[in-house]
Amino acid sequence: MTELISHLRSAVGAAHVLTEGDLAAWETDWRKRTRGKALAVVRPASTDEVAAVVRACAAAGAPIVPQGGNTGLVVGGVPDASGREVVLSLTRLNRVRGIDRDNLTMTVDAGCVLQNLQQAAADAGLLFPLSLAAEGSCTIGGNLATNAGGTQVVRYGNTRELCLGLEVVTAQGEVWNGLSGLRKDNTGYDLRDLFIGSEGTLGVITGATMKLYPRPAATLTAWAAVPSMQAAVTLLGLAHRHLGAGLTGFEVMGQFALSLVAKHYPQLRVPLYESVPYCVLLENADAESQEHARSVFERLLEVALEDGCAADAVVAENLTQAHQLWHIREAIPLAQAEEGLNIKHDISIPVSRIPAFCAETDALLQREIAGVRLVNFGHLGDGNLHYNVQAPAGGDMKAFLDENEERVNTLVYEQVKRFDGSISAEHGIGMLKAGKLPQYKSKVALSMMQALKRALDPENILNPGRVVAL
Amino acid sequence: MTELISHLRSAVGAAHVLTEGDLAAWETDWRKRTRGKALAVVRPASTDEVAAVVRACAAAGAPIVPQGGNTGLVVGGVPDASGREVVLSLTRLNRVRGIDRDNLTMTVDAGCVLQNLQQAAADAGLLFPLSLAAEGSCTIGGNLATNAGGTQVVRYGNTRELCLGLEVVTAQGEVWNGLSGLRKDNTGYDLRDLFIGSEGTLGVITGATMKLYPRPAATLTAWAAVPSMQAAVTLLGLAHRHLGAGLTGFEVMGQFALSLVAKHYPQLRVPLYESVPYCVLLENADAESQEHARSVFERLLEVALEDGCAADAVVAENLTQAHQLWHIREAIPLAQAEEGLNIKHDISIPVSRIPAFCAETDALLQREIAGVRLVNFGHLGDGNLHYNVQAPAGGDMKAFLDENEERVNTLVYEQVKRFDGSISAEHGIGMLKAGKLPQYKSKVALSMMQALKRALDPENILNPGRVVAL
Repeated sequence: MTELISHLRSAVGAAHVLTEGDLAAWETDWRKRTRGKALAVVRPASTDEVAAVVRACAAAGAPIVPQGGNTGLVVGGVPDASGREVVLSLTRLNRVRGIDRDNLTMTVDAGCVLQNLQQAAADAGLLFPLSLAAEGSCTIGGNLATNAGGTQVVRYGNTRELCLGLEVVTAQGEVWNGLSGLRKDNTGYDLRDLFIGSEGTLGVITGATMKLYPRPAATLTAWAAVPSMQAAVTLLGLAHRHLGAGLTGFEVMGQFALSLVAKHYPQLRVPLYESVPYCVLLENADAESQEHARSVFERLLEVALEDGCAADAVVAENLTQAHQLWHIREAIPLAQAEEGLNIKHDISIPVSRIPAFCAETDALLQREIAGVRLVNFGHLGDGNLHYNVQAPAGGDMKAFLDENEERVNTLVYEQVKRFDGSISAEHGIGMLKAGKLPQYKSKVALSMMQALKRALDPENILNPGRVVAL
Repeated sequence: MTELISHLRSAVGAAHVLTEGDLAAWETDWRKRTRGKALAVVRPASTDEVAAVVRACAAAGAPIVPQGGNTGLVVGGVPDASGREVVLSLTRLNRVRGIDRDNLTMTVDAGCVLQNLQQAAADAGLLFPLSLAAEGSCTIGGNLATNAGGTQVVRYGNTRELCLGLEVVTAQGEVWNGLSGLRKDNTGYDLRDLFIGSEGTLGVITGATMKLYPRPAATLTAWAAVPSMQAAVTLLGLAHRHLGAGLTGFEVMGQFALSLVAKHYPQLRVPLYESVPYCVLLENADAESQEHARSVFERLLEVALEDGCAADAVVAENLTQAHQLWHIREAIPLAQAEEGLNIKHDISIPVSRIPAFCAETDALLQREIAGVRLVNFGHLGDGNLHYNVQAPAGGDMKAFLDENEERVNTLVYEQVKRFDGSISAEHGIGMLKAGKLPQYKSKVALSMMQALKRALDPENILNPGRVVAL
């Protein structure tokens, strides 16, 4: 291994091969579920250096764990405990290579922090719409490797839909320049989308060309109380019809989730939630003007109130009020942590089936596990729920989790399967769910995934054991 | 081979295995460039029958050529002349399996004709936005296999962006049920997008779940004369800003292309083209109302006229006028055929570089080939040009083509390469361009494509030789 370290040092400079001292920042996952042990943390500064690192590791048979901002939620970007894996950190590749206003694209290094890219687009008078909780530290390379979702998916799609081209270092240490500002290119297989979402197991993303959009003239936020999940789905349909592509956010929040926010953050003043099972947060981005945004939004809510799918509603009067409403939505995960331990799920279900899924699964869990409390919220516009399970009030929460976590997961995942859903809508598979995948993915799909992994990474050098086991 | 035919007959019924009589409809490509010879044309009626056909062919080592409506433009869906290939026609799989209004999706058989799907969506009060010239006979399976583009890409994307899930028969004759109404699903590699655009070389698409959209309240069309290609690009930027996602079409047409329409179809009365090098056709789909659509459209054109990027403009007063404007755009290919033989290209270039590309390539061709005439038009909003080359007026056009076609292609493709473009934006590779690909695709990309082909179709049974040679 000394030879490998020395090759890595000559590839990226000795200062950027870390083997001693506190490497916890690279070895511990975001939610602090695991702490691994890296052979080394290597921090190349260019695509060519990444390629040299991959070639050195491949020659030595050392597994590589690509890492961006290390904010992933499925233990996909940290080393295992073997001490054999090399963490390949991309954060020094942090240059915006160029912004093309006429083409509405931005070409960037993989290690750029998401928030910096939002800002770079804004500075050019444009919008880069990807937005998620970790945006202050996650990198675009990580967003691409995990096909991150976020709050604007209902309008702009996942990270996949925002990407036009990639630069990738292959498992053989070759550079594929697939950077493209093209919106149409039918010259062969879709390599781009194969790397997106593959969590560093097929290649190392080093650069990307991303789509930009005009900045909307106005963005308005509304809050509606709805009498049922079915009513929320009906309201979503009305919102699509009235706002068209102006609908940029549609979040649903269960009453218990909101009650936790009200309890732990009373200063946030949660509106309209006390007499209804769900509230909905809607966002409307308008290409025209503030006045126009307000008039179509008010018309929508008028129709929804007449229809009965909304029981009550308010439109934020100004930006401050809009931020307050979003703040409530974003405070749910914090409030549930304040309340105590809980079991998290990141699932998706066809939108039309969500009401039945929630009714059945709520009842099932309450029947099976006495006192269990359901913190249900998420991106209803995308069919994506964070369907979380909170330990019963009082009692020993740790003991509850130890006893019930596996069982709760199985109950929820089996329901997801029955409803043709996904056990990981946004967060990916990583190490955390790699063992679960064979139960919830078809044999045919799994065997194709294995064949693809073997085809592109025959030595199983890239993030081995994550996503798909060979 | 008698044994294979007998297996095929028991798989789909003797009536649906055609080996005699006139098979020209399946053996000749759409543009009648080639006539192949099939061992048999097999017409299964279900996914299971498709799987049985694939297994029978695989066991016999007989290559399979999947075929939809046979409207492809790159000789990708017809058999070669060997008499060894089995044409697998999907047209009897023509059922709409279901429409899910709340989920905004439609699940359909691969053999459904595109126009029937547009109609099925309309009957449900929704929009299926894929639209292209061959829609009366092309099938959705073919659209998916070739990742078809069309006229609405600037708003809704290519066929890829409209697809949420696939059902595919693998090269081993297994059925992968990847039909999904999910908008978020990060459980492993993106198999869906690997099959989309692979032109039947990796698997046989038998079904798909496609996105639907609300129908716009109003659709308006405008026509603008622009003083240069750069002005057209500037107008495109203004249109994005003013119309947001309301911009559903942005077509550019060169003066010579329009003069051919005026010459051969004088009744179409081409507006505003006589004093400018290009005209632009814009379409605005509005979620709100006819009045609103008109007011934002007129505002856009006002700004464009002030800016100078538009020299003159008209908004269609009614649907008839709008159809007339689109008719002019659609008449260009017909008018150039009336004018005589020509060399067609389907290229894409980053939008920002199109003005320089056209200026340079126009000059290059005129310098290299005396009297050559350029019929340039296309989907500027997507960076996609049909940059066609018409033989000089008078003279022997056939002789001109025989002498110059290869040279013209090379000149244009080399320019495309210099401008980081694609030699096939919409139409794919098929047999027609498979030989060209190695010159215009990187070695690294090609070798990954070959590895993927070997991984999923190790016996090279599916559409061999198309797209990528092994």
